[in-house]
Amino acid sequence: MSIAASPRARGVSQRADVEPFLAMDVLREAHARAAVGADICHLEVGQPAAPPPRAVLDAARAALDGNGLGYTESTGLPALRERIARHYADIYGVEVSPQRVIITPGSSGGFVLAFLALFEAGEHVALTRPGYPAYRNILKALGLSVGWIETDLADRASPTAQDIASLHASHPLAGLLLASPGNPTGTVIAPDHLSEIAAEARRLGLWLISDEIYHGLTYGAATDTALNHDADAIIINSFSKYYCMTGWRIGWMVVPEYMARTFERLAQNLFICAPAISQIAAIAAFDATEELEVNKAVYARNRDILLGRLPAMGIDRFYPADGAFYIYADIARFSNDSRGFAARLLSEASVAATPGPDFDPVAGDRFLRLSFAGSTETVERALDRLATFLRS
Amino acid sequence: MSIAASPRARGVSQRADVEPFLAMDVLREAHARAAVGADICHLEVGQPAAPPPRAVLDAARAALDGNGLGYTESTGLPALRERIARHYADIYGVEVSPQRVIITPGSSGGFVLAFLALFEAGEHVALTRPGYPAYRNILKALGLSVGWIETDLADRASPTAQDIASLHASHPLAGLLLASPGNPTGTVIAPDHLSEIAAEARRLGLWLISDEIYHGLTYGAATDTALNHDADAIIINSFSKYYCMTGWRIGWMVVPEYMARTFERLAQNLFICAPAISQIAAIAAFDATEELEVNKAVYARNRDILLGRLPAMGIDRFYPADGAFYIYADIARFSNDSRGFAARLLSEASVAATPGPDFDPVAGDRFLRLSFAGSTETVERALDRLATFLRS
Repeated sequence: MSIAASPRARGVSQRADVEPFLAMDVLREAHARAAVGADICHLEVGQPAAPPPRAVLDAARAALDGNGLGYTESTGLPALRERIARHYADIYGVEVSPQRVIITPGSSGGFVLAFLALFEAGEHVALTRPGYPAYRNILKALGLSVGWIETDLADRASPTAQDIASLHASHPLAGLLLASPGNPTGTVIAPDHLSEIAAEARRLGLWLISDEIYHGLTYGAATDTALNHDADAIIINSFSKYYCMTGWRIGWMVVPEYMARTFERLAQNLFICAPAISQIAAIAAFDATEELEVNKAVYARNRDILLGRLPAMGIDRFYPADGAFYIYADIARFSNDSRGFAARLLSEASVAATPGPDFDPVAGDRFLRLSFAGSTETVERALDRLATFLRS
Repeated sequence: MSIAASPRARGVSQRADVEPFLAMDVLREAHARAAVGADICHLEVGQPAAPPPRAVLDAARAALDGNGLGYTESTGLPALRERIARHYADIYGVEVSPQRVIITPGSSGGFVLAFLALFEAGEHVALTRPGYPAYRNILKALGLSVGWIETDLADRASPTAQDIASLHASHPLAGLLLASPGNPTGTVIAPDHLSEIAAEARRLGLWLISDEIYHGLTYGAATDTALNHDADAIIINSFSKYYCMTGWRIGWMVVPEYMARTFERLAQNLFICAPAISQIAAIAAFDATEELEVNKAVYARNRDILLGRLPAMGIDRFYPADGAFYIYADIARFSNDSRGFAARLLSEASVAATPGPDFDPVAGDRFLRLSFAGSTETVERALDRLATFLRS
């Protein structure tokens, strides 16, 4: 390699030149406006308005009174790993040994570990477009390439086994990442359909990574864990969404037993461990279903309000929103520059929303993501402001 | 590239095949023994026995009572970034704008960000041997190579400008990582010496990464931030050591202003944010100096006890322990297999210590690291047990 300039003179590396996570850019701008007095309706990040369950907060308080906030095992507290293993038996009827559960600092940590453990630099991983922006940005930072499965409103943003086989034929893939319910679309992949996709991935020799962070948050549709369709699937999940613990940075993976030690070694070196207080508190989250279902009922009401009121404002093309807590809406009638649209919506109407290019670098310019994880009052006020904004 | 087997059939990636962080393996084993009744003396991890300062715990309690544990800005809470910026003025007399401070999930997060942002895959980064194991293991996982600066007891594990120039001549380097006080050696690089090294790195066009996680923990030696010797240095620090917040997973970086946006984009995608409760609580840590200096006095006493009693047991060759809270001791008189030695010490004497290969893959087999961050009672009991163990 001939080096034209010293590393310092070159500046930042090419691989670090990833796109911003626009939802976080909007959050920063919204916080800065709030700090000088603006009254912001937050529809930009996927963050429940409700606090974590009472039992979670009580467990955290008790942990502060004890002396237990040192390093935990890198794969997580044994009691939390055991509780998660039991959750798989309870909810999905699948047996998972606690040794297969890896506690991570949010699902983010899980993606970093999975991409490093499963793929060599230069390989391709299939993603559905539109999708969560960190997938493609982490892949790029780690020297991996994306194979895009393009979906649209007509096919409900749901990939097919044939999509995967076709993509693999043109861009040999090393893995496939599925998210169901998906972000930003809310699309749920039905269990029989998931089974077909998993079988195709297995046939092609691809790793299947299943992002199940929105499990628990569906409005009628049935979900299943990919573990019931591929025993070697890598499952990524988190306490951020259904369990309302976003800022606690706590998630988990389920990995094949023969890979657990690899994940442990990576976690030891890359993270040391997930936050101790969050791990202790999260154990209580699985027994707070009653409280969490009340929150979910709020999301369901918010979703109905949005789906009811948006069409009258001229926003009438959405992805399904079977699950999760987002409306991914076509705003082409108003703008083909959703970044500019979102910036004006924030500055002129104090409504924070996330522009589509976060989720879709190709067609995102005419889409906007609205989170309905906030309070009903927030959603209603945001809609009032949006209506006024669109009329002007 | 010819693919001999499908990615799934190949198993884990080569880059994920990193060494374990042995201190964390020992911690896991020690916790497992404690869970079935063993009374373990923990000298394996660099973890203060003292809890965080009272004001930190109070701030965390107040945060649990509020509604503020959502996502923060990816670069961290503005109030924490401002407080850290002020710390640089107060302690080091250097002006740092809050925009240059990036809050990370522990120093671990800082290393991942720095290595990705500064270096292209395939480049070499100079590390001092012995040193912190995650440096070399994260570098490998991210496709980077190590250029080793070998040090030993005779040169106090302190690299020279000449060492760096020689290494660069044989293995063109992209960066240099310095840690002062060092882990496991405790070596402090004196400010004038640091200045020479920084000037050489600048002359060669290398990025200088300065791990300052053990700042505040010295026993007489003067330390300085590398920012006073290279305005473009990348500083990595944490609340884990001096501030006693290990399991809280909260650290920070100082980066050049022209790189701050790159780090923000990486943090958005790789971490989202550091734990909110830890960020809120950490603000209070800088004003708890009185309490923290009491803890440091305990480490100083523990250090004196170790340096006083170990020679009589036949362990009389150590690195300097100018700072940090470790004795890195030559145990060659007893064993040339410190992994086996540490395993027996744990199983037979219930003393957990970290084998040298964690820190030095070449000469570590005859070294053992003992942390003196625990209570004096723990250190004394561990020494009693070690004396009995060595006699048997």
